[in-house]
Amino acid sequence: MARSIGILHPGEMGISLAATAQNSGLDVYWCPAGRSSASQQRASNLGIKPLPTLQDLCNACEILISVCPPHAAVAVADEVIACNYRGVYADVNAIAPTSVKSIGQSMTEAGIDFVDGGIIGMPATQPGTTWLYLSGNHADKVASCFSKGPLETSVLGPEIGKASGLKMCFAANSKGTAALHTAILGTAEAMGVRDALEKQWAIYNPEFTETSQARIRQVARKAWRFKGEMEEIAATMEAAGLPHEFFIAAARVYERQKSFKDAGHEPTIEEILERIAEK
Amino acid sequence: MARSIGILHPGEMGISLAATAQNSGLDVYWCPAGRSSASQQRASNLGIKPLPTLQDLCNACEILISVCPPHAAVAVADEVIACNYRGVYADVNAIAPTSVKSIGQSMTEAGIDFVDGGIIGMPATQPGTTWLYLSGNHADKVASCFSKGPLETSVLGPEIGKASGLKMCFAANSKGTAALHTAILGTAEAMGVRDALEKQWAIYNPEFTETSQARIRQVARKAWRFKGEMEEIAATMEAAGLPHEFFIAAARVYERQKSFKDAGHEPTIEEILERIAEK
Repeated sequence: MARSIGILHPGEMGISLAATAQNSGLDVYWCPAGRSSASQQRASNLGIKPLPTLQDLCNACEILISVCPPHAAVAVADEVIACNYRGVYADVNAIAPTSVKSIGQSMTEAGIDFVDGGIIGMPATQPGTTWLYLSGNHADKVASCFSKGPLETSVLGPEIGKASGLKMCFAANSKGTAALHTAILGTAEAMGVRDALEKQWAIYNPEFTETSQARIRQVARKAWRFKGEMEEIAATMEAAGLPHEFFIAAARVYERQKSFKDAGHEPTIEEILERIAEK
Repeated sequence: MARSIGILHPGEMGISLAATAQNSGLDVYWCPAGRSSASQQRASNLGIKPLPTLQDLCNACEILISVCPPHAAVAVADEVIACNYRGVYADVNAIAPTSVKSIGQSMTEAGIDFVDGGIIGMPATQPGTTWLYLSGNHADKVASCFSKGPLETSVLGPEIGKASGLKMCFAANSKGTAALHTAILGTAEAMGVRDALEKQWAIYNPEFTETSQARIRQVARKAWRFKGEMEEIAATMEAAGLPHEFFIAAARVYERQKSFKDAGHEPTIEEILERIAEK
């Protein structure tokens, strides 16, 4: 079993992986260079060990976990390869199996043991809410780093692309449905029939409007980082031979909401519909 | 109040409008020329009155209702204009407000009183399940033809485009969600992670897979006529300034299932996923 693990990088999700690994008895490292003060605060609160450079992190760790926004996954992997890292590297980001396979090939050629991963759920705080799916020949080794703590792990066999593929399909439903509902409400608002639509929905399902709008509002402040994920889902579906344009639209829906990142509050449904209306 | 109404054409939905109008005390007419034997059987069972030509129908009726597949709506309207019809014409088809406005303009120029309509629900068999929404200056006159019977009517004011707009938004959710789920399941199947996906969904919502798949199977045999409706929804959303590509994909999902029209049974989910996989 591995004794040291590095987290690239401890955002909210990354720190929940770090906490579970620490709880499972591993030495957990990270590299503060270039990270936000929020990351520094999270890492300091948890007491994981800072190392000054990525090279130091690569030297110290048997396992590295990449958990970052989708658009950064390739750059993070390339930096690790450039450090002549020789351990296990798990990419657990929300990226398409084709993207994962491409990263995995570069890793394997560089002599690094590559593992595919995908996280389903919010940052883990209690058992039964967040899953780390893993696939690849070294998946078990990564899973064993998270044996004690709220994060659940599940190994999907030796094939690279399975864990990320599952993650893409799961996110396609949750974030795709929220985007679809947002676009439909925006259309109804623009045509002046939103009240009538919500009334009609309520006949069939009294909770539909409330549930759907709570979800739309919940994701609005995270929308800034969903565009890349929606594009990865579109690539996943296209590579699988299915109609993928749902996620061209979903990317556009979230792109229009990116400025909510800095909103000091959870936006109202009216603010969201105003923002996604074409100017 | 009108005393005579003509139905173009008595498909399953059309016959349910005809039955409600008949029950409301109107003389109900139709034109069998060129219609299917199923239509003839339905009309004969209900006892509505056949007239040999469309011209006869136009001469006999104060109100005409167009209820046909989306792609046929313009042709049906043009034929009625060519008969020098002079009553009220309601287009209740699943077409975009822009399409409705275009038909309405031709009608108005031809001296016909035009009403916009949209039907939400299955063919009406009991109250509280199916709604005929109407808008336009003569909407009340059409609504009063359906005062007694299972079909509910609701007038959305004088503006052409409101009733069809509402219908588009409602169908966008119901048929768009089914298409999205179908494409996601097809992607999961192609990547070999469908079991894992359904297991993960079940953790959050034990009924999700069963409910979603029942809906997917239910619409499969009707998919042949959904492509046009999905394209009308895409046009509706684009005209409203919202991302519309969800419905480019939904049209493709249903197009791939068109051959289920002739299936003698409700297809299994495996048959549907096999059919929508790219060959």
